[in-house]
Formats: sequence, C-alpha cells, structure tokens
Amino acid sequence: MSKRIALVSTGGTIEKTYDELVGVLHNRVSVLDVMLAQLQLRGITIDRVSLMNKDSLEMSEDDHDLIADTAAKQAVTHDGIVIVHGTDRLAKTGHRLVERVSNPPPPARPLHVPIVLTGAMRPWEMRSTDALQNLTEALLAVQLLEPGVYVAMHNHVLRFPGVEKDPQQGTFVKRGT
Amino acid sequence: MSKRIALVSTGGTIEKTYDELVGVLHNRVSVLDVMLAQLQLRGITIDRVSLMNKDSLEMSEDDHDLIADTAAKQAVTHDGIVIVHGTDRLAKTGHRLVERVSNPPPPARPLHVPIVLTGAMRPWEMRSTDALQNLTEALLAVQLLEPGVYVAMHNHVLRFPGVEKDPQQGTFVKRGT
Amino acid sequence: MSKRIALVSTGGTIEKTYDELVGVLHNRVSVLDVMLAQLQLRGITIDRVSLMNKDSLEMSEDDHDLIADTAAKQAVTHDGIVIVHGTDRLAKTGHRLVERVSNPPPPARPLHVPIVLTGAMRPWEMRSTDALQNLTEALLAVQLLEPGVYVAMHNHVLRFPGVEKDPQQGTFVKRGT
Amino acid sequence: MSKRIALVSTGGTIEKTYDELVGVLHNRVSVLDVMLAQLQLRGITIDRVSLMNKDSLEMSEDDHDLIADTAAKQAVTHDGIVIVHGTDRLAKTGHRLVERVSNPPPPARPLHVPIVLTGAMRPWEMRSTDALQNLTEALLAVQLLEPGVYVAMHNHVLRFPGVEKDPQQGTFVKRGT
Repeated sequence: MSKRIALVSTGGTIEKTYDELVGVLHNRVSVLDVMLAQLQLRGITIDRVSLMNKDSLEMSEDDHDLIADTAAKQAVTHDGIVIVHGTDRLAKTGHRLVERVSNPPPPARPLHVPIVLTGAMRPWEMRSTDALQNLTEALLAVQLLEPGVYVAMHNHVLRFPGVEKDPQQGTFVKRGT
Repeated sequence: MSKRIALVSTGGTIEKTYDELVGVLHNRVSVLDVMLAQLQLRGITIDRVSLMNKDSLEMSEDDHDLIADTAAKQAVTHDGIVIVHGTDRLAKTGHRLVERVSNPPPPARPLHVPIVLTGAMRPWEMRSTDALQNLTEALLAVQLLEPGVYVAMHNHVLRFPGVEKDPQQGTFVKRGT
Repeated sequence: MSKRIALVSTGGTIEKTYDELVGVLHNRVSVLDVMLAQLQLRGITIDRVSLMNKDSLEMSEDDHDLIADTAAKQAVTHDGIVIVHGTDRLAKTGHRLVERVSNPPPPARPLHVPIVLTGAMRPWEMRSTDALQNLTEALLAVQLLEPGVYVAMHNHVLRFPGVEKDPQQGTFVKRGT
Repeated sequence: MSKRIALVSTGGTIEKTYDELVGVLHNRVSVLDVMLAQLQLRGITIDRVSLMNKDSLEMSEDDHDLIADTAAKQAVTHDGIVIVHGTDRLAKTGHRLVERVSNPPPPARPLHVPIVLTGAMRPWEMRSTDALQNLTEALLAVQLLEPGVYVAMHNHVLRFPGVEKDPQQGTFVKRGT
C-alpha cells in the first residue's frame, strides 16, 4: 500500500534557474516537477503543495509561520511531509515546526508523522548539483522515520531541535558537534 | 559519530560500461567509485569491497554463497552493509542472505545490522539512469533501518523474504501483491 | 538568409537506445529530434528525412543505393545534405555517393551542394558521447564547405574518396595516412 | 597534417562557475580545459592562451586592445585563432580586430588566417547550455574559413564588420537584418 506524502515547495537554491537575458540565478519557475520526473517513485503517492518560491534569506516571520502551519495542516491527511527549502533559513523553519507542530500547546495533538526538510547547496540547473540526491533522500527518509522534524541532506538525517547550517562546510550539523 | 558501512560490489547493469570498439555494454570496469564521487556523503564512512563484476544472470550457486558469506563477515565489523547487485538474481541473493545471515542455524548469532541490496535497470553510464537514485537510497536506508535484509530501489524499501523482481514493471515487489 | 538543409537519418550507434527489459542497445526509436532540440540552430532550416534506423553492419547493397539516391534527390531542392549513419559502413555509403552523385555518368548534372556524413562511436543515450559534437559539426560544416562528399566527426572534416574508418582509433582517416 | 590553433580565453558567461558559499556565478576558474576534455579533437593541435577571465561588461579599452594584439601576435605562428569571449562586448572586440588585424595600417601585413570569436548565453556549468555547442563550432569553423574575423555561435557563422548582439534573441545577427 502506497504512502501518501505531501511535498511542500518554498523555493531556495535548489529551485533557482538561470535567466540568460540578465545573467543571474533567481527563483521564478518551479523546477521541482522536472526533478520528480527524473526519479522513479514506486513507494509513494505525492501531493504537490507549491507554497512560495523564495530565497530563504528573504523569508519573513510570516513566511516561516505559513510554512509551519501548512505542514501541520497537511500532516492530518498524509503519512509524511517533505518540505523543499532554502538552506540559509531552513533551520529556522525546522525549529518553528518543533514549537508549533511537533510539540504544540494543548489541546492540539502532537505530530504523528515525520516532517523532512531538504534543500541544496547548488541549483538543480547546474551540471553538478546535490539537488537530486537530497530530494531522493528526503522522499525515502519520510517513509522510514518515526514522527518528528528532520533535515535530510548529503546522506545524513538530523533531528530537530539543535540542528544548524555550517556555512563553511555547506551542510547541516548538530549544534555543538 | 559517523556510521561505518561496507559497500560490496558484485556487478550488474548498474556497473555496465559501453565498449565503443565492439559496440556492447558489459561488466569490465567498476564505475561505483565514480558514482560515489558524484554524491556528498556526510553521514557515513564507506569501506569498499569489490567482490566480482558480473551480470547476475551469470552467477553460480557459489557466487551467491560467496556474496552471503562476505556480507556476514563484514557485518561483524560494520554498522550496515550495502550490496550492489544485478537485478535478475538479486532476490536469490536476498533469500540466501536470510537463510545464512539473518536467521542462521545455531550457534551463529543472528544478524544485528541491516543489509541493503540495490542495483539498477539502466547502467550508470546512460544519460537517463536509476543508478544514482538507487545507490543514494541504499546508502541512506542502511542508516535508518533495523537489522534485516532489504532491497532499496525506486524510492521503495522492501524486506526479505518474499521479495521478487517484476520483469514487466522493471522493479521489485512483495510476492503476492 | 537561412540555408535549407536536408537531414537524412539512417540509424547507427548514434541513434541506439537502451531497452531495459532485455538489457541491450538497439535501433528502434529515432533520438535525432531530441538531439536537435538540445542545439540552438540559427543559421539553417532543417527538413528531416527518416529513411531507416539500422546498425550499418546490417545494411544491404540496396540500402546503400537507397541512401545515395535519396541524397541525390534531396540535393536538387536543398543547400546541403547531412546524413546520420552507422560508422562501420559509413565509408561505403560515402564512396557510393561519390560514384552516383558527386561524379555521375552523363547526362546527370554533377553535385552542386555539399553532402556531409556523420555518426558516433558512442550512442547519444550515453552520459559520455560524441553524438552531439558530431551532429553539431556536420550541421556547421554543411554551411561552409564547397560541393562534394565529406565525413565530419571528432573536429575533423575529410573529403571522399579515400576515407576509411580506423577501427583501432575509433575515427575516420584518409587512406594511406 | 594537423592544424595548429591558438585558443585564447578571456572569460565571459561560458566560463562562469557557481560559488556555493555565496550563491553567485562568477569568473574565477577557467573551465575551458574541462570543456576541451569532453570533446574529441582529431583535426587540430591547440595552444591555450589564458589571457583574462572577465565578464565582458567589465572590459576596459585596454582589455579590448590586449585581446586584439594577442590575436595578431598568435596569428603569425598559427593556422587559426579561436577567442572565447563574453557576448556583451564580443562585437566590440570583433570590430577592434578588423581595424587592427584584418585590415591594418601599412606596413603591417593583412591577416592571413581566420580568427573566430565565440561565447555562450548560458554557462558551461549549467545542465542546459550552449557552451559546448559554440566551442565545437568555433573549433571546426576555424579550420574551414578563409582569413577574416568571425563569430561562430548557435550553428551560425557571421563575418565582421557589421555583426552585433541581439539581446532579445540572445544571439548574434548582421546589423540591419
């Protein structure tokens, strides 16, 4: 029986595309569907939720709230949630999810499915990119993990809270490690 | 703390390369190290075990035994085992592993780490291939699964026994489903 | 003013595709249109002539005649002809073209446009391939060359007669060089 | 007998690479040698001249002079010159070459080899790019053209003077057409 996963896209480097007339990379077109078409996905049914397409450095507090609320709402009707997100503010959304969704004030029910955040250091449009690897990992991890909030990237799954981006290494680490 | 994974290669379509002088695909050169170089692998340390490079249709009973025995031996010193294998006889090796390793006759200890088999329907050398997706999935699944024998391919993890290749769909399914 | 080019496809390694159910490369589907879509073609208008899709080792004498006759016919209404061909018998078609088209028995008019043969040592479907390079070269060379019969491959243009495949190097050379 | 070609690199979009720590494309590393390694180059011997690595919008008058003078000097000892250049100021360098090299004030000798400029609208690092196509075309055109100054891009060869970039179409056209 196939699991039903909500795939929430918010933008970030992974979805940046190159505009040849002005010569810059920006978030305009969602390339997530093109990425999905490159994968063979037998274990799951995906519901796409295109929420926004932003460099996460430009996300407002309201944006982080909106992402957390959307994930909470989708969790009611799905077996897991994957969120594609810019890496710069991914940890902020992860911690917001822990507060609101994973460990909510009563009488809300605690989260009963996994929420997996992912992103990329290099856009999918690049010849060499971590985008497909990270999306593949998130879509598999969401089937195997117990309820909680996670980031899956670079063959590594880390559980919130306590996760942060290491800008020197260009990846995520557990705080204090 | 990084997990230590043994990556056992046995050949199969995933490793086939094109010989332009004779115009055929065959198992001669291991391309697994080139694939690994395309991935960012933060969560694990990999020990490579190059066992054989065969189309699995050409594997003998001794070959299946050798693969099972090698996995059993590596399991003693590793946190998980990934086996790259031709898909045509992958299920045969999976079931042999269940007999020998997962559920051994006493006084041998039962398996205490996961063993994940993977392969590909299209060689890594092809422009369009499931090779990197499947390898990515196996390397993540081996970190998240409980002890047992599995196949990870096409965003799907199935546990042995009872797994078989569906040649029409070109993927693995649970027998009777 | 755009030049009008006839692009005649006959098959060969360049067009071979991988059949994952049986695990072999063969000539079944024309991938030439997919290749053309990857190029930006400003200088020319292309008329596609899909003549056959064969490994050239399997071409009969009638096939070589048919290709030469088709090129001759297209030459009347085009500014140049590009023929995509298997490399093993490409030189045979090239010499047939010289006899029939380039230097015909009277009262036929001699060829007044260039005919450029090309092919590939590795299928376009491979991650690493000379297919796009060779097609690019043929489509440019046909705009720049004087009337005659040529092969364009591997950044090299050679004029028939006297051209042969060097199977060791996997390319074309002038006989005796 | 192999032709000797000087390949002069000056930067431009074709050579831009992605810096994942800051998330921008810039001219820092020359990727031209990686591009050359992807091509099979039988007809020519290449001498690489790494002159500068600049977005052509940032070129000074001295830069245009330096490129023209370098091409003139290399023309004495080579059978042809290829210049890799940003497209925004490519036409300026092309016209400078016509003044200085193609049609010099006496007693200098007029140009006796072809000089072919090329570039790209999308960096080679992108999954979808015109970089390899344009480099392939320039390296072939320089073997086939008579002495003069040209741009080769998008399957089109145009001769200077009178060539300009059409920023809407993202390619080069003859002025007034």
